[in-house]
Amino acid sequence: MTTGTLLLVPNTLDLGAETVDLQEVLPLGVLRRAAALTHWAAEDARSARALLKRIGAVVPLARPLQEIAIVELPRPRKGSREAVPAAEWQALLAPALAGHDLGLVSEAGLPAVADPGSALVAAAHRAGVPVQPLTGPSSLMLALAASGLEGQHFAFVGYLPQDAGARATRIRELEGVSRRLGQTQLLIETPYRNAAMLAALTATLAPATRLAVSCGLTLGAGWNRSGPVAEWRTKPQQMPERLPAVFSFLAG
Amino acid sequence: MTTGTLLLVPNTLDLGAETVDLQEVLPLGVLRRAAALTHWAAEDARSARALLKRIGAVVPLARPLQEIAIVELPRPRKGSREAVPAAEWQALLAPALAGHDLGLVSEAGLPAVADPGSALVAAAHRAGVPVQPLTGPSSLMLALAASGLEGQHFAFVGYLPQDAGARATRIRELEGVSRRLGQTQLLIETPYRNAAMLAALTATLAPATRLAVSCGLTLGAGWNRSGPVAEWRTKPQQMPERLPAVFSFLAG
Repeated sequence: MTTGTLLLVPNTLDLGAETVDLQEVLPLGVLRRAAALTHWAAEDARSARALLKRIGAVVPLARPLQEIAIVELPRPRKGSREAVPAAEWQALLAPALAGHDLGLVSEAGLPAVADPGSALVAAAHRAGVPVQPLTGPSSLMLALAASGLEGQHFAFVGYLPQDAGARATRIRELEGVSRRLGQTQLLIETPYRNAAMLAALTATLAPATRLAVSCGLTLGAGWNRSGPVAEWRTKPQQMPERLPAVFSFLAG
Repeated sequence: MTTGTLLLVPNTLDLGAETVDLQEVLPLGVLRRAAALTHWAAEDARSARALLKRIGAVVPLARPLQEIAIVELPRPRKGSREAVPAAEWQALLAPALAGHDLGLVSEAGLPAVADPGSALVAAAHRAGVPVQPLTGPSSLMLALAASGLEGQHFAFVGYLPQDAGARATRIRELEGVSRRLGQTQLLIETPYRNAAMLAALTATLAPATRLAVSCGLTLGAGWNRSGPVAEWRTKPQQMPERLPAVFSFLAG
């Protein structure tokens, strides 16, 4: 029997904050591929079903939603720092090994970028299951493009510490890396801490360092701002508490 | 008069190697926005016109192709390392300042990511021209997703030196960074040097370091492979000379 393919299916970036038209952010070909799948692995089954319902409104699904198999990615046990055993990831590949194409979808954007799906992709490579990534919105790359900062050298550093002192230390450390390597630093924050993160960046970075924020990417309420830290200090910016944001900076 | 918006319009990744259906890689909403634009800034005017011709076959262009204004991005004078003066970037924004939406397009993928367009985006922010990035394929993020390597911490390091000795030194340096930070390293190479780059990575990296190659992303002839360097050594991989590739690795 021929092995199915692991299809990396992008999700929207709206997270239910405001529903964008799928055809604004996903190619029709991707909607068609997704609508044809009967087996899925998902970061969250509920949001995967919500996406499938939206896709079905554009391209009819191959099967009724309740007949589509959606298995959630395993999570480390609460409080445990141990990785999920490789066998659990391998088990998720059963439909692909049985010949079905298998979709992987995360809660927003491209799966396996800034989310836990990469372990499933690694398991697919070990098991000889072909992997095919499909085009969709990447908040990190859209933010980088909109920042006007160095796009030929950049790093995504994930989340920063929540403790104010540790966060300031980390921001200074990353600014040093940015200066030494000419490397744009990209980071994200939980929406309700967006304002605290912007305040910390504005207070800690050097006045000449260029700072950019992309807020609510692909949404009608979205905006992009970029300029020297000195400018952010004189013209402060209100940050929404519910829209996701990407922060980036480049030492001046 | 209201200022126009600088729209960051994604291109395909096919570079003429093989023509993909636009609707496989670009959302219909993006095709519509692009078809409506009468002013463009482009990395290369010829490939911008080729893209517009393909877009026009899906969504009628607002004007005949020969009436659409396409201005190429300024380049540093040959042999000069001096940056292009800010005034030259500012001049490109004239249509936006006169109230027209202005498209920015590069030869492949998202503009201002791994290409020279970021200086125009920075000029737009300085001039108060709003910037809006549109969704399309990012070879770097598609390759990262398909690699199964660490997607929560990564860096794009551009091109490596061509000299074999300097390249090996740089590969070892990047492997050290990857090990210390748990950071996936992403890099690109000119297609006809793909085989030399893969040979250098395979020979230089430690056997347990995980190496991934995405070749011909979004193309029918495309493939993704990922695994420990030890495995690449025992099962070598033929690299095409004409398809673009993204290389990534994570120290084991």
